[in-house]
Amino acid sequence: MSSGVTTPRGFRAAGVRAGIKASGDLDLALVASETVATAAAVFTLNKAQAAPVIVSREHLHRSGGRARAIVVNSGCANACTGSQGVQAARAMAAETARLVQCPVEQVLVASTGVIGVALPIDTICDGLPAAFRSLGADQGSAAARAIMTTDPFSKEASTEIAIGGQSVRIGGMAKGSGMIDPMMATMLAFVTTDAAMAPALVDRALREAVDDSFNAITVDGDSSTNDTVVLLANGVSRVEIDDRSYRTFVDGLRAVCRELALGIVRGGEGATKVVTVTVTGAATATDARRCAKAIANSLLVKTAIHGGDPNWGRLIAVAGRAGVGFELDRAVVTIGPIVLFKDGAPHDELAPAAAEYLKGKEIAVGVHLGAGASSSTVWTCDLSAEYVRINADYRT
Amino acid sequence: MSSGVTTPRGFRAAGVRAGIKASGDLDLALVASETVATAAAVFTLNKAQAAPVIVSREHLHRSGGRARAIVVNSGCANACTGSQGVQAARAMAAETARLVQCPVEQVLVASTGVIGVALPIDTICDGLPAAFRSLGADQGSAAARAIMTTDPFSKEASTEIAIGGQSVRIGGMAKGSGMIDPMMATMLAFVTTDAAMAPALVDRALREAVDDSFNAITVDGDSSTNDTVVLLANGVSRVEIDDRSYRTFVDGLRAVCRELALGIVRGGEGATKVVTVTVTGAATATDARRCAKAIANSLLVKTAIHGGDPNWGRLIAVAGRAGVGFELDRAVVTIGPIVLFKDGAPHDELAPAAAEYLKGKEIAVGVHLGAGASSSTVWTCDLSAEYVRINADYRT
Repeated sequence: MSSGVTTPRGFRAAGVRAGIKASGDLDLALVASETVATAAAVFTLNKAQAAPVIVSREHLHRSGGRARAIVVNSGCANACTGSQGVQAARAMAAETARLVQCPVEQVLVASTGVIGVALPIDTICDGLPAAFRSLGADQGSAAARAIMTTDPFSKEASTEIAIGGQSVRIGGMAKGSGMIDPMMATMLAFVTTDAAMAPALVDRALREAVDDSFNAITVDGDSSTNDTVVLLANGVSRVEIDDRSYRTFVDGLRAVCRELALGIVRGGEGATKVVTVTVTGAATATDARRCAKAIANSLLVKTAIHGGDPNWGRLIAVAGRAGVGFELDRAVVTIGPIVLFKDGAPHDELAPAAAEYLKGKEIAVGVHLGAGASSSTVWTCDLSAEYVRINADYRT
Repeated sequence: MSSGVTTPRGFRAAGVRAGIKASGDLDLALVASETVATAAAVFTLNKAQAAPVIVSREHLHRSGGRARAIVVNSGCANACTGSQGVQAARAMAAETARLVQCPVEQVLVASTGVIGVALPIDTICDGLPAAFRSLGADQGSAAARAIMTTDPFSKEASTEIAIGGQSVRIGGMAKGSGMIDPMMATMLAFVTTDAAMAPALVDRALREAVDDSFNAITVDGDSSTNDTVVLLANGVSRVEIDDRSYRTFVDGLRAVCRELALGIVRGGEGATKVVTVTVTGAATATDARRCAKAIANSLLVKTAIHGGDPNWGRLIAVAGRAGVGFELDRAVVTIGPIVLFKDGAPHDELAPAAAEYLKGKEIAVGVHLGAGASSSTVWTCDLSAEYVRINADYRT
């Protein structure tokens, strides 16, 4: 079984070179369902919304939550490009609709790359027929590669769950490496399922799954203008998701979303380690998430972990300034299984053991705030000198 | 005229090697007034408050806003050190009071360095008599060097203003290079004046001056456990600051604070450029400051400036996610004098001119939010690979 958007039955995909990227890498992806799928999407909350976000939201609204195809280009974000950019996004959807033979509002569009550069719409429209001809149930991986920008590897995930003794498949692909601190969705992710679901249920399931996957990761604290997560449910499995099976489905969906989201963190710009930040003892769930995000975005925490330095004082300092309930005397700081601060006193005799633990590639840090019973987990990566090199030279 | 805390008449200072720093650098500073000065201080809002912050706040309260001396060590922050840490801070103040011959509550204490390490109080008490013997009106610069940690250079500033035809002097020193995004005050700064001022007026003047100086800078978005700014007014000039002369005095005080604050940014960890971020067209002053801080703390903005990349799209992306009123169609982005985005459209033909401008060391960027008439200016530095090296290896 292939591992991404084409895992669920009735979906085909393609990834081709249209010539948008100067590098000549794959840069145009197409995902098509053989039937009209119910669809939901979450988009960036950034107030500077890219043209494809504007057009996709409009299409979902006009189609009543139904879609046949998704078209995605990398190499250009089509953001901050004014009315010309919106026209270009519409043209990209129209040419896809012509090829797939569906109403234009059943096409969702997405773009990723540099902000503020005009979309080379002729190049894209010239490349679309080749993408359409390449559509295949075995081309999910090509599509996943075609949506990459600074990603060091492509991200795919899938699962098969049993509902009432019948098989339902869920698969997806994602991209994203920098400008990752999603405010609602992350950079770009496309998830498919062959379950049959009413539009409202697709929407509800997607929002629930995204909250503890894409919305729980951060690479650099910046949120994109193009963040989009789409879920298409084409019903080809003939298994209808209802209230009874909803929980099973969401668990499967969350597992796929989380694997994709963790892939984004693992491939974060310059990342050498994946860091799981768990905050417990918070007064509220909001406090817990806020503090976990603050820790995950702290340059001092991220560089300490990069350098293998068990500098628990930096974790305390962030918790103290995160604007959440925090009691120093009741706080506990752990690095891996090692308790480095508890009952108001350091345990620096354990620092060598913590330094040894930090040599690993999968790091867990925990802060207990001593202010309540809520908790939250957020995933991030370390911050390396390579991050600076990537982002100081992004356009040169 | 010397340039720091000893510029105002009636202040002496010292900076000595007590042996706290393994490097053998200066690590103990003393500032003393020949008369009892009125005093005010602003401290970190971090909930993990260091022992010297707790003790200094208590002393200011007990003395009714009066102080004779300030004692500061570098090499150890005495933060997250529990009740032992508070005892050590008290002992440091008591030994200073014994030498200076004043009540203990007229001594303010401060510490800076690694968090969570016990203060070597015997080393400090052993070093204090030598510091006391070294006190001199020409030793301000030694004191400024003795409070440094990762600072690449010491920070001093002073000014002389005329009030009613008479001279009033204001001088100060500061330290700080990382963990700089002050929530109320910045790492450590000590400002002296020979003006005569009532305690309430010292407090009001300090808060006003700090707001547009130390509170308007950021290096890395992290706020310290030890942030402290102190102002001592010893009245030796015999010029009393009253309601009529208050504005003149605050302008002078703000100038000194701003020079010290900019010194911190210029010496920010790994910094190669000083960046002035100005946000205009904001709905409220709070929005303006919030957006300016978000831009100043964005890794993507800081690395782009480091790399000389006029990537205005990153400025738009941050403004859009900063949680403030923002109208993309009315937004304007400038790099130096060059307008790169206006009326919803990029001016990429000007990118080469902007790239040339970014080769300088003093960079200004501006974002007009198109949402109102408020504005704010914040100072920061760029983010270099050297920042990562400094912070990945801080304790090793």
